[in-house]
Amino acid sequence: MKVAVVGVGVTKFGKLENKTSRELFAEAVDYALKDADMAPKDIESVYVGNFTADLFEHQGHLAPLMADYAGLRGLPSTRFESACASGAAALRHGILAILSGLYDIVLVGGVEKMTDLPTTEVTDALSIAADNLFEASVGATFPGEYAMIAKAHMDTYGTTREQLASVAVKNHHNGFLNPKAHFQKEIDVEKVLNAPLIAWPLGLYDCSPISDGAAALILAREDVARKYTDTPIHIVASSQASDTVSLFERDSLTSLKAAKIAAKTAYEMAGVSSKQINLAEVHDCFTIAEIIATEDLGFFQPGEGGPAAEQGLTQIDGDIAINPSGGLKAKGHPVGCTGVAQAVEVSIQLRGEAGKRQVSGAEIGLTHNIGGSGATAIIHIFRR
Amino acid sequence: MKVAVVGVGVTKFGKLENKTSRELFAEAVDYALKDADMAPKDIESVYVGNFTADLFEHQGHLAPLMADYAGLRGLPSTRFESACASGAAALRHGILAILSGLYDIVLVGGVEKMTDLPTTEVTDALSIAADNLFEASVGATFPGEYAMIAKAHMDTYGTTREQLASVAVKNHHNGFLNPKAHFQKEIDVEKVLNAPLIAWPLGLYDCSPISDGAAALILAREDVARKYTDTPIHIVASSQASDTVSLFERDSLTSLKAAKIAAKTAYEMAGVSSKQINLAEVHDCFTIAEIIATEDLGFFQPGEGGPAAEQGLTQIDGDIAINPSGGLKAKGHPVGCTGVAQAVEVSIQLRGEAGKRQVSGAEIGLTHNIGGSGATAIIHIFRR
Repeated sequence: MKVAVVGVGVTKFGKLENKTSRELFAEAVDYALKDADMAPKDIESVYVGNFTADLFEHQGHLAPLMADYAGLRGLPSTRFESACASGAAALRHGILAILSGLYDIVLVGGVEKMTDLPTTEVTDALSIAADNLFEASVGATFPGEYAMIAKAHMDTYGTTREQLASVAVKNHHNGFLNPKAHFQKEIDVEKVLNAPLIAWPLGLYDCSPISDGAAALILAREDVARKYTDTPIHIVASSQASDTVSLFERDSLTSLKAAKIAAKTAYEMAGVSSKQINLAEVHDCFTIAEIIATEDLGFFQPGEGGPAAEQGLTQIDGDIAINPSGGLKAKGHPVGCTGVAQAVEVSIQLRGEAGKRQVSGAEIGLTHNIGGSGATAIIHIFRR
Repeated sequence: MKVAVVGVGVTKFGKLENKTSRELFAEAVDYALKDADMAPKDIESVYVGNFTADLFEHQGHLAPLMADYAGLRGLPSTRFESACASGAAALRHGILAILSGLYDIVLVGGVEKMTDLPTTEVTDALSIAADNLFEASVGATFPGEYAMIAKAHMDTYGTTREQLASVAVKNHHNGFLNPKAHFQKEIDVEKVLNAPLIAWPLGLYDCSPISDGAAALILAREDVARKYTDTPIHIVASSQASDTVSLFERDSLTSLKAAKIAAKTAYEMAGVSSKQINLAEVHDCFTIAEIIATEDLGFFQPGEGGPAAEQGLTQIDGDIAINPSGGLKAKGHPVGCTGVAQAVEVSIQLRGEAGKRQVSGAEIGLTHNIGGSGATAIIHIFRR
């Protein structure tokens, strides 16, 4: 696609007290500018992913605000909201803006500051990614929605709670290796199974946490990228599809149609097959979501995602490394930041700079960012 | 820019009870598809401008939801939030998506459903377009901010309340000629001056109303546009700039720096001067905003916008027709819809289909969409 990642930055994820979204965003941008050895004046436009600072911070008009505090005052700055896929929506449109010929270099950032509200208010805020008329207003918030998806997957394929738990265990292990991750501790299957239930069959450790964080990417047109880095990471596919927001309107609950369509498009665009992907950062907002993601992306056949996770095939040294960063589950899930953070992780991995969590010999990586229960799916593929 | 408008649609603006945003959006899309003689299957991607359904309807993840209800389920669908310039942000990125080579035909829609909340809650919701830390939280909501801007303009240039009032009178006259406008009644200067004060020097009739509404545009690559229409409206410039969100950080309150920068870029891109513009839909959220817009866009020298309005130079048959639709003031201001509705009006005018409010011989039109008190400015120029 003639666009490359030339700089990346990500803040620590977690409950970051006394920091506002603008401070987190500026910190991530600062890291990315340093990484690319660039000055703010090199940036031509700013793309911001954020789900709902409207509800989390009573703040909208986010793009010029973030740009200003990051030292990028005055630049064309736009905010993207695609629920939990807001970060990838910003990334996708940063890429398209370069492809349009309008810009050579753009900054893409994602940010969410979630922990200032009590948990029940956060769940309520997140529920606006569901259909307020037919889902949220009658109590169907996301833990319940993904619980229904998990139950359907269990009924159809015999997926077990132990298989779900193995996703959480792996991602906590990977997060333990990632200094920026929200959680820095290992857990075992027993701990997951014995944790308080949130919405059966999902327990506390099947759910991603409420996190604060920001991430930034600097994108450049291929022909200028080498001015800034010896290791440009080439973006070879960007695809997006959507589906009904309401679960009840779907034909199936055991896969996400939008993700399957976006995956097919992305593989065609990149000219690669699912077998060629070395690592993927996928949208594991709940453990079941990672299992379904690995099926929707063609890494495993439908119903084989659970056994594959349990057998360790998705570990960093497995057949395909899934969420080496720790994923949403352990790295954390500052919602509108996640899609950008996924791309940061894949870029770091493809550069070979991921330290203890490095996927050996990684050449091709993929990001899979989902909004809500699958009404938005955005996929990017990157090559070293 | 090799992109043309081939279909337009707009709902009636006003207090539209018993209609949700999805119904309004679908209605506007339906009009646009009929106008372009297209089927939903002809559309490849959906761009949605919306400010904060998050607060107005407790609904996010708006793009796939709107697409679904408009018969466009499954398409890549993205929502843009740039406060009151959200509609133009969606338009701009629809244009860039076509220029990127990814799509031939996209739908751009804008929608806001505002009247379900009490007025005080609407003002509070709108205040998230200001800086919550330094403005809204200490009481600086938009009527107050624009009142400060008006006072500064009066002090610097001698602008009068009568001049402000003449903007309201003109826009109510134009709205009276526009069957889709929120207000359908003429007013006079006396009525404006004697209305209840909102924030001195701005009275009730100096403020745009709280409106519901939706608008849609179908954009096509130039080389396919003629398949759908004999009167494609060519988009010849799209520009965007930003500024500080907080007023207190600005060097001047008597003009909007972002708008001046965006105007300069737009004229260069289009290869036209301000003198060649026949009509402009500008962001008159308050009467003072229209006066400043006409100065920032180069139609009048700084300080001459007030006298020009009072002398009738901005009427439909004046030197330059400003807001022939009735503008935000009388057509209404469903916030995230406004930027799209402005482009709909300019397209209708350039086609010569504006009926009683037609600007005679209009060849070139401009839209000027502002977010907040000027932290975002997005300008588009269109040619017959």
